[in-house]
Amino acid sequence: MGYLISFEGGEGAGKSTVLKRLAEYLVQQGYEVVCTREPGGIEIAEQIRNIILDKKNVRMDAKTEALLYAAARRQHLVEKVIPALEKGSIVLCDRYIDSSLTYQGYARGLGIEEILTINQFAIDGYMPHLTLFLDVSPEVGLSRIRKNGDREVNRLDLESLDFHRKVREGYYHLLEEFPERIKKIDAEQDMETVFQLVLNEILNYLKRNH
Amino acid sequence: MGYLISFEGGEGAGKSTVLKRLAEYLVQQGYEVVCTREPGGIEIAEQIRNIILDKKNVRMDAKTEALLYAAARRQHLVEKVIPALEKGSIVLCDRYIDSSLTYQGYARGLGIEEILTINQFAIDGYMPHLTLFLDVSPEVGLSRIRKNGDREVNRLDLESLDFHRKVREGYYHLLEEFPERIKKIDAEQDMETVFQLVLNEILNYLKRNH
Repeated sequence: MGYLISFEGGEGAGKSTVLKRLAEYLVQQGYEVVCTREPGGIEIAEQIRNIILDKKNVRMDAKTEALLYAAARRQHLVEKVIPALEKGSIVLCDRYIDSSLTYQGYARGLGIEEILTINQFAIDGYMPHLTLFLDVSPEVGLSRIRKNGDREVNRLDLESLDFHRKVREGYYHLLEEFPERIKKIDAEQDMETVFQLVLNEILNYLKRNH
Repeated sequence: MGYLISFEGGEGAGKSTVLKRLAEYLVQQGYEVVCTREPGGIEIAEQIRNIILDKKNVRMDAKTEALLYAAARRQHLVEKVIPALEKGSIVLCDRYIDSSLTYQGYARGLGIEEILTINQFAIDGYMPHLTLFLDVSPEVGLSRIRKNGDREVNRLDLESLDFHRKVREGYYHLLEEFPERIKKIDAEQDMETVFQLVLNEILNYLKRNH
């Protein structure tokens, strides 16, 4: 069995940049690496994602949305993550269960415990072995996104600053709930430092669990 | 607040026929009646249903399917059922939570308790006030469908007889678990008798809870 490592954090925390460098590094070290994010090109999960993101669906209830995210997560897990783990790969996943816990459970107010319950049904015990939480203040994260021409500003970026503060607060609650699994990295530092800190956490984990 | 009354049973139990007569009767008696079945013309729920039924989606995992059913149920509930209940209507619903409990929880083996948990999240306390379980043996039900030119044979009709037996067994388990809410009607009798038995249960319920 391989390792499932998830990357979490607010918008503009630098997850995708770190993840890309990390994948390159680990491949050079001889590891099998699968780099993914939901819905990860899985046809059924993409279809579900399209319903969530369809701008016409303004009447979508928050619980409907949470169930759809869980359904897409399930299918991505079954079709892509589990087969990779069974081959012994390190799976680096940009966002996973903790994003639902903080965005929907905490920031949207559905309750972390309730969102955990439906996601436990969805993931069937496949909790991440290790989770890197890249922590930035919403102010820093959002200003990075505005400067960053790489991607368009999306619906979540446009939520109020207050919403993004709640997302961060939610992650802090998760840090308390899962202190062994989730490691907080101060991601306001320069990218090289952040990358090195993340890499150390992962190499330490692999060493301890080899 | 109105009343939410659900109709359950295997294929060919005669639910839709009974429901139609019942709606006509109750309207004549001066009740506000909303007759529905999931996804009930709710755009978001229809989109979800299309993913479930899409024949190309052969790789769909059973848990993904269960989460999608729960999502469609949630949206139909929020957009159609709750507003009708708030107006004081009697909502007659052709299949509801018990169908998921027996088809996915019991017959597909995902576990009644697990499917109940995700559906409780979806329905937020809106359990049916009363559930009529129209009980027929799979042999009788399926032979009715074959004789009935009204509708095409669907994917579920084509499951093995063994599967339909399990669905019935699942309903029997639910009868034990929810003896107050679920009333079993022997639906192998002629339709007039079945209709009268169902009507009696509903009128008794309304009398007791007025």
